[in-house]
This record gives sequence, C-alpha cells and structure tokens, in this order.
Amino acid sequence: MNDADVYGQLKQYLGKHITVSDEQLALFCSKFKHKKTKRGEILLRADEIAPYSYFVNNGCLRVYMMDAEGRESTRFLIFENSVGTAFPSFTLQEPSMAYIQSVEPSEILYITHKDFNGLLDTFPGWERVYRIDLEREYIASIRRIESLITMDAKQKYNLLMSKNPALIQRLPSRIIADYLGISQETLSRLKSKK
Amino acid sequence: MNDADVYGQLKQYLGKHITVSDEQLALFCSKFKHKKTKRGEILLRADEIAPYSYFVNNGCLRVYMMDAEGRESTRFLIFENSVGTAFPSFTLQEPSMAYIQSVEPSEILYITHKDFNGLLDTFPGWERVYRIDLEREYIASIRRIESLITMDAKQKYNLLMSKNPALIQRLPSRIIADYLGISQETLSRLKSKK
Repeated sequence: MNDADVYGQLKQYLGKHITVSDEQLALFCSKFKHKKTKRGEILLRADEIAPYSYFVNNGCLRVYMMDAEGRESTRFLIFENSVGTAFPSFTLQEPSMAYIQSVEPSEILYITHKDFNGLLDTFPGWERVYRIDLEREYIASIRRIESLITMDAKQKYNLLMSKNPALIQRLPSRIIADYLGISQETLSRLKSKK
Repeated sequence: MNDADVYGQLKQYLGKHITVSDEQLALFCSKFKHKKTKRGEILLRADEIAPYSYFVNNGCLRVYMMDAEGRESTRFLIFENSVGTAFPSFTLQEPSMAYIQSVEPSEILYITHKDFNGLLDTFPGWERVYRIDLEREYIASIRRIESLITMDAKQKYNLLMSKNPALIQRLPSRIIADYLGISQETLSRLKSKK
C-alpha cells in the first residue's frame, strides 16, 4: 500500500472542515506513522502514559478499564475515520487508567503528543478541526452519561441499534454488553426479541 | 455593580490562556449579558433549544434530566468561573434532553449561540481558550463515565471528596446522591463515616 492510500482517509477527515493545499496536507500527514495491528493487540496498558493519539483507517480500537479482579469495562470505541486515544492520559500526559486494545485486525495511523500539540500551534485550521471533533466526542460522552444514569437495558440497546446497528453484528457480545453496562444474558434476550 | 465587576471574572478566565488587549477584552465581554437568578429558577426546559451558554460569576447551575415519572438525574454542575450549558442542544441547536436550573441564587453571564460562534471566527485566541476548556470538560465527562461504570458508592464519594470537597457541604444531599448515582441513604452513611 503506498502513502497516498495510507493517508487518504486522514486527508479526507481534515478536508471536511478546512481547505488546505496539497503541500500542507503532506506536511500534516508526515507527522503520522502507519501501523497494522493484530486482533487483541494491546496498544497501551494502565499506568503507562499514552504516547500516541490514533486515527483508525480500518478496524476498531477499544479503550477499557480493568478492576482489581480483572473485570473489564469498555469506556470508548474508536472506529474508522475517527481520532482517539486514552484521552485524559494523552492530553494531560499522566498515567492512564485505561488500556487500549485493537479489537479487530486494524490499520491505524498514530502521532506523538509533541507532534499533536505542535500541529495545534503551527498548522492553520488544525485547531478548528480538532475543536469540532472534541465537541462531537464530548457530546457522545454526554449521551453516554445520560444513558448510564437514566436508561434501562432495553433503552440502551435500542439507542445503540438506532445509532450504530453494524456494531451489534460486528463486535463480540461480551464487549457490547459491557459497553452498554448490561449483562450478556440481558443482551441476548434483547437481541432475540428483535 | 459596575461593568468592571460584572465582567472581571470572565476577563480573568480569558486571560488564563491568551494575551489580549483591553479593547479586545471589552469587545469580547460586550457579547455577554448579565443576569441574577433565584434559587431554583429554571433557565432551560427539556425540548427547548438551548439559546445561551453561561459563565457563572457566583452560584451554581445544574443540568439535569427528568424521566416520565418526574425523577431527576443530575448530569452536570456548572460552578463559578466556568462556562457551561446544555451542551449538545446549544452546540447542535437541537431540542434539549436536559433542563438547566439555578441551584443557588446565582450571578451569571450569558451569550447567544450566534455570538458564541461569531467569536470563534473573529476573536483571536478564543478558539484556543474554548478548545482547552472543551478538553477539560471532556476529561471530566470521561472520569464521570469511568466512575459510573466501575466504581462503587464509596469510591465515587471518595473521588468527589478529593476533587471537590466544598460541594458536599454546599449542595443538598438529594442532588449530591443523584449526581453520584447512589441513594441518599448510602450517601448519609458515607458522610457519617468521615
């Protein structure tokens, strides 16, 4: 796969909100490295400082917590054509409470914290794209909080079905149930009713 | 109270991250109107489109949801020297799922969606201040999700005690319990153990 293919989606992502020249795009992309991951590969462990933010070309990354008994809780999923990381750790450069795992074999781009902030200072329009993305992510996290504090299992499942039905086919039931904060038994009961 | 007093905290907030002239500051502040609220005053109802974002000079605003049975769930609290609103509704200009209420008698500044976005396009540095604020709020919402999906009542209470102990003295137990997603009985048990 040549560079154009590897960076094509990132360029589209950037071009959604701002107009930039090909030279600027090439400079922007040069800050991102390319990597293929295996199913289940761990990209970050808790207590490490998240060194990278990721752009997913294809596949899916999962940000999750693990308690003292080894029980996992999925905090966040990063899909194709979006940017994400263990956000508090990456942004504040402090030890992460979360792990990052490649749920599927994935193809990703990654950028260091230093280069990410460098682009905010030097690349025209990047702060705007990032700000709009932050608004979107913040809204998603507010919706998540709303569903956690007010919805029952059926409402949570129906919301996910309406927003992201492919997910329910694609990811293991264990991860879906955990993401929704419901039991696997409840999830399979809800699925069978559809 | 003269204008300098009313806008003093907003100017400090802006000056934390960027350097701006007095003329620029005055222009910025001219977009904000000033208002005093009563205890319990409702500033936004569900299904309305949030017209304003708020800066709290003193007091506290509460963003909360209400279910069909009239049960309230506190989603977010906006304290002194911070900006907030029913964020998805204000940002997307769509009907709000949440209410906004003044928990205490408060003194607030408010700005329309049009003026808010106008400042992003025209006021040097405002996009940076807002972006940094968004990162902070997004991190707070991630911490909230983490606590909702992984912590028990005691852990949630201890986290709040370490981050914002004044809150526990200041707000009604009903709102604290609801914010933490625990029962009032559990909260008073935890308080008495301290």
